[in-house]
Amino acid sequence: MMTWPPAAFLHHLADIADRETLPRFRTDLKIETKFKEGCSFDPVTAADYEAEIAIHAAIAAAFPDHAILGEEMGLTGGGSHCWVLDPVDGTRPFICGLPVWGTLIGLMLEGRARMGMMSQPFTGERFWADADGAFYERAGHRHPLATRDVGALSHAILHTTSPEHFPEDLKRGFDRLAGAVRMTRYGGECYAMAMLAAGHIDLAVEPSLQPYDIVALIPIIEKAGGVVRRIDGGRPEEGGPIIAAATADLCDRALRVLLA
Amino acid sequence: MMTWPPAAFLHHLADIADRETLPRFRTDLKIETKFKEGCSFDPVTAADYEAEIAIHAAIAAAFPDHAILGEEMGLTGGGSHCWVLDPVDGTRPFICGLPVWGTLIGLMLEGRARMGMMSQPFTGERFWADADGAFYERAGHRHPLATRDVGALSHAILHTTSPEHFPEDLKRGFDRLAGAVRMTRYGGECYAMAMLAAGHIDLAVEPSLQPYDIVALIPIIEKAGGVVRRIDGGRPEEGGPIIAAATADLCDRALRVLLA
Repeated sequence: MMTWPPAAFLHHLADIADRETLPRFRTDLKIETKFKEGCSFDPVTAADYEAEIAIHAAIAAAFPDHAILGEEMGLTGGGSHCWVLDPVDGTRPFICGLPVWGTLIGLMLEGRARMGMMSQPFTGERFWADADGAFYERAGHRHPLATRDVGALSHAILHTTSPEHFPEDLKRGFDRLAGAVRMTRYGGECYAMAMLAAGHIDLAVEPSLQPYDIVALIPIIEKAGGVVRRIDGGRPEEGGPIIAAATADLCDRALRVLLA
Repeated sequence: MMTWPPAAFLHHLADIADRETLPRFRTDLKIETKFKEGCSFDPVTAADYEAEIAIHAAIAAAFPDHAILGEEMGLTGGGSHCWVLDPVDGTRPFICGLPVWGTLIGLMLEGRARMGMMSQPFTGERFWADADGAFYERAGHRHPLATRDVGALSHAILHTTSPEHFPEDLKRGFDRLAGAVRMTRYGGECYAMAMLAAGHIDLAVEPSLQPYDIVALIPIIEKAGGVVRRIDGGRPEEGGPIIAAATADLCDRALRVLLA
């Protein structure tokens, strides 16, 4: 039988991450070694690294037989349970001072994303999914997350993080889709995916995600009523070109335009 | 002699706006008349309209001889003092649930932007400029705003709200500039301009702003050490294609690439 850790454990891990990320947000980049590529002493890298070490240690202490895949530390362990971590998803907004980054903590059971946490400590928001559903919490107020159903593609709000880095084919498809929807929005990273789960955005397309960019978000979106797929077909746990949608029907409509 | 209203009055106006905008943020668009273009009953339009009415009334009560230019109500009055209002700058992030919109309240004296307020009530942040300088406040903690100096263009972070809506010439210039900087970021609206004043972003280019999109931000950026110019030359109070930069030198470098 597979064990589902309690939601409280997700919050425990998010608390641990918040203590490493938030104090480094908007710290003075000027006093650091200036913008050297690959420099490991800038605040975002330190936040990423220290948060992953801390989360990793907490998981290893509680569940020594679980595997852990992290952006910084790679894969350790194996078996039916695999935690997937991105301590700071949204490096760019983190660096720019914009509060649309988040800590992503996902749990895969037998290869399928089942639990997830997105923590944004500056706004004090948590979005998560556990065995009971998908939820939002801020300032002690908690409510379930639910996607909306706008019906037609022409009523949908589409998001992508950046117009850059699309392969040419997918860019043409994205431009077609952008022309078919009500509005296209840029620059939201994981926060935009959370807003999709919360019913404010209807579609998100990302050309190239890593597993740690998406695994935590899959159950949050799915349990809120939405879908997450690889654009080239199949389950999205391994990353790649990803579409998320508020409903399966909207996802189908969007894919028909994207891949036309 | 020209009167400078006290900074407390800016905060008073921001308080009034916050009471109209924040309760409408992330309210359920599903129950409204669905996404009808020009519909005046959606939450963002209601927030815009009600906040402008409330700010307008407060200014008129305190300074009956001041002119007021608002996004919704147009220009009323005339004379040396003109308030310039955008109750919800960043309609798209407001609709999408992303906390990077803001209420903009600017004051021009003899045609020149001199005081400004950007209030983001969800994060509880205020960025403003008064006779004493440019300041940030959150949760009772206040500090001066200061842009940074990264020196070379290749170290700069560039922002624009959306890659859409650029005229062709300026888009080519923007793409050149994006190729010359360290990183390009999208989707920040007025919040990105505030982050420029706070020293986290170095350059912002917007192809087409209205006066109410920029007047409040000009003194915030200028008094933090930055510059705001029309890309085609001259003062930016009238809107149009706008560049903001952390330093005058960086602005010159960016303009040389943008207009090459």
